[in-house]
Amino acid sequence: MNVEYPCTIAVFDVGGTKMAGALAHYASPAAEPVIEGRRSVPTQANRGGAAVLDALCDLVGDVLSDAERPISGIGVGTAGCVDVRTGAIAYANELMPGWTGQPVAERLEQTHGLPTAVLNDVKAHALGEARWGAARGAQTCLVIAAGTGLGGGIIVNGHVLLGAHGFAGEVGRTPCPDASGDPRTCGNASDLESIAAGSGIERRYAAAGGDPVTGGEIAQRALQGEELARRIIEEAGSALGEAIATWTDLLDPELVVLSGSVCNAGPSWRAAVQTAFERQAPAVMHALPIVDATLKDNAPLIGAAEYLLDTLKGRS
Amino acid sequence: MNVEYPCTIAVFDVGGTKMAGALAHYASPAAEPVIEGRRSVPTQANRGGAAVLDALCDLVGDVLSDAERPISGIGVGTAGCVDVRTGAIAYANELMPGWTGQPVAERLEQTHGLPTAVLNDVKAHALGEARWGAARGAQTCLVIAAGTGLGGGIIVNGHVLLGAHGFAGEVGRTPCPDASGDPRTCGNASDLESIAAGSGIERRYAAAGGDPVTGGEIAQRALQGEELARRIIEEAGSALGEAIATWTDLLDPELVVLSGSVCNAGPSWRAAVQTAFERQAPAVMHALPIVDATLKDNAPLIGAAEYLLDTLKGRS
Repeated sequence: MNVEYPCTIAVFDVGGTKMAGALAHYASPAAEPVIEGRRSVPTQANRGGAAVLDALCDLVGDVLSDAERPISGIGVGTAGCVDVRTGAIAYANELMPGWTGQPVAERLEQTHGLPTAVLNDVKAHALGEARWGAARGAQTCLVIAAGTGLGGGIIVNGHVLLGAHGFAGEVGRTPCPDASGDPRTCGNASDLESIAAGSGIERRYAAAGGDPVTGGEIAQRALQGEELARRIIEEAGSALGEAIATWTDLLDPELVVLSGSVCNAGPSWRAAVQTAFERQAPAVMHALPIVDATLKDNAPLIGAAEYLLDTLKGRS
Repeated sequence: MNVEYPCTIAVFDVGGTKMAGALAHYASPAAEPVIEGRRSVPTQANRGGAAVLDALCDLVGDVLSDAERPISGIGVGTAGCVDVRTGAIAYANELMPGWTGQPVAERLEQTHGLPTAVLNDVKAHALGEARWGAARGAQTCLVIAAGTGLGGGIIVNGHVLLGAHGFAGEVGRTPCPDASGDPRTCGNASDLESIAAGSGIERRYAAAGGDPVTGGEIAQRALQGEELARRIIEEAGSALGEAIATWTDLLDPELVVLSGSVCNAGPSWRAAVQTAFERQAPAVMHALPIVDATLKDNAPLIGAAEYLLDTLKGRS
């Protein structure tokens, strides 16, 4: 199917806390998409998956009714694993009860009569950064989202790697040799997420005797020189840096993009990432750029638009 | 460039011990390639890289002069990291002294006047298995070669993943939580290769008080019930199975193909691979087929032919 330009896509980002919607406008095939009319509503995930899908369908209707140009399709990035053949949710965790099984693409297509493509939100984020953000022009890159959890998106030949079930890019369970240098007992091997994600930082800080505060507060205390906070933050960075070396061995990306709230943890976190990466990676890889994401909240919206366009062009 | 069928490619597999050459004949675009006139000569790697390239060039000449059909090109799988833009050796280890820097594609093209494509031998092996072997028809798969060392090839969208420098697929340095369940001290984190490859099996068996024998002999002793041999072999399988779970999290392949001499280590090794994989992988992935390679020594030759054809078709 040919896509005609100028072209406008209705785009959505469904998370556990809120849903965002907007229009992504492309003046020409080579023009950077512009996000317009962004709005968001609470997800109210506790109402259950069917109610969330109703609310998403309403949000889509609102965005479409405000559009002043014809809309070519609907692109959705969403929490959960997406069955990319059907655009339904193959699996969502307890943060989105009942989201598993919801037929997102089918419902939106039937209600609004527009072609719809649905992608996991982290993959949408990665695709956005790869096409128009920090990795613009890269054919192969890895985008890591380190927030409450730890997710990833792999770009190969300019397209997001989906894998056999659409589950590719799960980086959180990469084994993590203890970043601290302390002895540890195997059989309790830590996954990366338990050390490097925001939830892990909070849990480990509290378990080591710190106050039960947010990751942001722990990072702030580290900056102010508190020893425990500094250690936990640096161990998080070190664990991530080691894992980047493992992923780089497998994928040989042109660059790695870091996004998510943990990336605001400060210069000692960032230095720990780089030091651990260089310790683990062969010398030939040390020049690998590890850079910050640039599109912020627009990344998953732009990625959802790009994925819809890929689908329309028959090359998703 | 169009490829005309029937089509014959001169194909080569350059290893540290020997070099093999043959013709790969395709009766039609859809026909399975047939390997004909296979021969091999010692690599004599200790003579240095320039002498090895001379010997390869002579072997190519011999294969071409025996051909009874026109030859469309030369495909080479070789030990070492290949700069896929130039077909030169970007890096080779001490098993091939002076192989680094040898301009393999340029030399063969100039001498023999045929288009030439050069690929790392494990990637060639993987591409062969993906197109015509155990993973025939798979769009995304992972091929692991567990021999003296541990290598890998990743197939995405039916093509071998090269990455930014051609280095993708390095699986041997994946971190390995100790497979034994014994306590260990971090800071001495083991790479997978040191436990799961043949060299690791031999080293660990000897270090634990066993005789300095080959991996094949250790596997034989394990089959006969020797406790130490059994433990080392099972730890090797367990470490590989855990790592397969990590790689599967990243890549979500349709299947995993195991090849190399370590795969002959017997049913307790194979059971350990599967058990560890299922322990580490999420339940939704447990049905992942982990299968044996089928093309044996022809795999890198067929993969080299396929890569040359990809290059001729402009889609390597």
